[in-house]
Amino acid sequence: MGALPVTFLSDYGLRDEFVGVCRGVILRISPESQIIDITHGILPGAIGAGAFTLAGALPYTPPGVHLAVVDPTVGTQRRALAVRVKQEDRVLVGPDNGLLTLAIEKFGGAVEAVEISSSPARIQPVSPTFHGRDIFAPVAASIAAGSPLSHHGPALDPTRLASLDVPPSLVKPGLIIAHASAVDRFGNIRLDCPGSSLDEAGFKQGDTVELSATGTTHPGVIGRTFADGYPGALVVYKGSNGTIAIADNRGSAAAILGVDAGVEIGIKSE
Amino acid sequence: MGALPVTFLSDYGLRDEFVGVCRGVILRISPESQIIDITHGILPGAIGAGAFTLAGALPYTPPGVHLAVVDPTVGTQRRALAVRVKQEDRVLVGPDNGLLTLAIEKFGGAVEAVEISSSPARIQPVSPTFHGRDIFAPVAASIAAGSPLSHHGPALDPTRLASLDVPPSLVKPGLIIAHASAVDRFGNIRLDCPGSSLDEAGFKQGDTVELSATGTTHPGVIGRTFADGYPGALVVYKGSNGTIAIADNRGSAAAILGVDAGVEIGIKSE
Amino acid sequence: MGALPVTFLSDYGLRDEFVGVCRGVILRISPESQIIDITHGILPGAIGAGAFTLAGALPYTPPGVHLAVVDPTVGTQRRALAVRVKQEDRVLVGPDNGLLTLAIEKFGGAVEAVEISSSPARIQPVSPTFHGRDIFAPVAASIAAGSPLSHHGPALDPTRLASLDVPPSLVKPGLIIAHASAVDRFGNIRLDCPGSSLDEAGFKQGDTVELSATGTTHPGVIGRTFADGYPGALVVYKGSNGTIAIADNRGSAAAILGVDAGVEIGIKSE
Repeated sequence: MGALPVTFLSDYGLRDEFVGVCRGVILRISPESQIIDITHGILPGAIGAGAFTLAGALPYTPPGVHLAVVDPTVGTQRRALAVRVKQEDRVLVGPDNGLLTLAIEKFGGAVEAVEISSSPARIQPVSPTFHGRDIFAPVAASIAAGSPLSHHGPALDPTRLASLDVPPSLVKPGLIIAHASAVDRFGNIRLDCPGSSLDEAGFKQGDTVELSATGTTHPGVIGRTFADGYPGALVVYKGSNGTIAIADNRGSAAAILGVDAGVEIGIKSE
Repeated sequence: MGALPVTFLSDYGLRDEFVGVCRGVILRISPESQIIDITHGILPGAIGAGAFTLAGALPYTPPGVHLAVVDPTVGTQRRALAVRVKQEDRVLVGPDNGLLTLAIEKFGGAVEAVEISSSPARIQPVSPTFHGRDIFAPVAASIAAGSPLSHHGPALDPTRLASLDVPPSLVKPGLIIAHASAVDRFGNIRLDCPGSSLDEAGFKQGDTVELSATGTTHPGVIGRTFADGYPGALVVYKGSNGTIAIADNRGSAAAILGVDAGVEIGIKSE
Repeated sequence: MGALPVTFLSDYGLRDEFVGVCRGVILRISPESQIIDITHGILPGAIGAGAFTLAGALPYTPPGVHLAVVDPTVGTQRRALAVRVKQEDRVLVGPDNGLLTLAIEKFGGAVEAVEISSSPARIQPVSPTFHGRDIFAPVAASIAAGSPLSHHGPALDPTRLASLDVPPSLVKPGLIIAHASAVDRFGNIRLDCPGSSLDEAGFKQGDTVELSATGTTHPGVIGRTFADGYPGALVVYKGSNGTIAIADNRGSAAAILGVDAGVEIGIKSE
């Protein structure tokens, strides 16, 4: 009984009314749903950062409908998805561009998928630039209010969804080469590489390492938290979201390394 | 049965506690109301941008009470309003400075208006600088919880509310002169002119145009979406909020044209 | 019957998913709670600004559980608190670093306090860097859902909590020396000093004063609102949050005085 909660992640930002309009659309259709904003601060079009953030956050949210929109190719032929996952009672709704991939894997893979571009729940005429409002939000809300996935479009093969297009990481003894997926408010860098890769590479707490990025190098140390560094060294640790993080205890690791999202970063034992 | 939802738009931003305090005030008075934040990112004091954003967003939100505060002359003699509109069951609450004008028109005009500055629901003493907290939010919440408008102050002539003070747009065959009402997160420019003006001026998809602003000119093309441009041309299209928009497919149209909110922009057939 | 609302203040910002993940954690445990975001824009680690903002905002929110996280020493030995206050039915949850001090005083002091670091409600393993998610949010939610404080850890002496470590203000006839606790979106400066200090120092509306900060001086006038200045003078007034505020009618007082949070500011009668 009762409507499911709807979580919502996007790159819409909070300066404009994009998110607010989607909230309105959701609550018109499913007035009893709780909307849980995960974040709307994904860098515009940053599918990879959105995918890592979504997968890291969803295990902490209640099961329900998970709306995610980072959609740089809105208005083209990319498919629009509603996907039921294997574990827990969760449905993901968003573009078929890899954004949902890691979250789907996190819950055991997709067991049902439908193409929702022509869902009867969509708002017509569908704007060519704002599928969040006209397709994704109304479908998510309709599912949260109880409609079955099959109501929203033709079935897709759940094993053939778009995968996340990120450059591969390299992990071998004493060396990790990965990429910044995001820089957080505190200037900490997040890599597109799980925290367990530190173990895989044989790094242990207290090991000193050489960090390299954009042609410069900087001393680092493997730690447990961003407070574990020593003056002049950045700390490399397992971030709270499950990926490798690099931080400076008192400032911005991103500024020190001159790194922004997408940049390749090396971690090498000394 | 049940309290009405309260939508909320302002120029308060999210850095400070202004919005949070208003949320608290609303939920003390109407604990069952859903609060739907439309945006709080209206530029400080930008009544016109607030008016266009509000009018574009409200049709997507559930009927209820619509709180809007962009109020650069707070503390002066400007009136404070609660206004019932003709279509749907919607009440707008905010300053009488033109902010509500376009939204009121959108729903068929005002059928009832009251001056709420001395509403029994206000928080006393009323701060001279924060009527959002002390007048607008408590009155909105009280109406959402079921109190009639007449409870909150003397009736006003609903046909004599302040109108929006924006410079007039010029639309004639082959020429539109309007103004930037806002620049969104993606650098897209929104004009203070409905999308239908493109038809009025005789522009068709694919037409090339000359854009002019702040003494410079730039090539443009009439399109359906921000993705419809070609290298070197900005796209002019009907934005998802109903007004004319100007975008660059890969960057910021606002930066290319050197435009900020308020600037006059010309669209001329070549 | 019914879960308590949870207010939430932090320095997490809204760019990343920190706040969204905490929202998810709260609603998994207490699905019926309303979450009221006060602000997440406290400058990173600014305990004093957080404390003033919290104490100024809570009287406007419904009684309930008040989650607050500005926690620059997360992962060290600082204690984690749940505190019941004397007046109204309010429980504060956050780090024992002074952040809660002013709010506790506002409601008549603490009558019960427990150390929650090992609460059975915590999420294990506890991340060394994200106690908001793993300790504070789940404990706040569990209390909001009805669990007693004593369930969450050993009792502490409620009279011996950490106090707020701010440099003392000086108030004497014709002179106030205090500090900027924050600069708001509008460029207004907030001092770490109650508005009543203006009366204490003998300042009256219309008095001209000399403002000094960072080695420069600027003319000011005591006013009732930020609109009360005259060209070239900053206005000093009782801010809506209860502390002294300094504003420029048309621009940023913080920019004019070259002031950021933490800077000492003098107000001297001429």
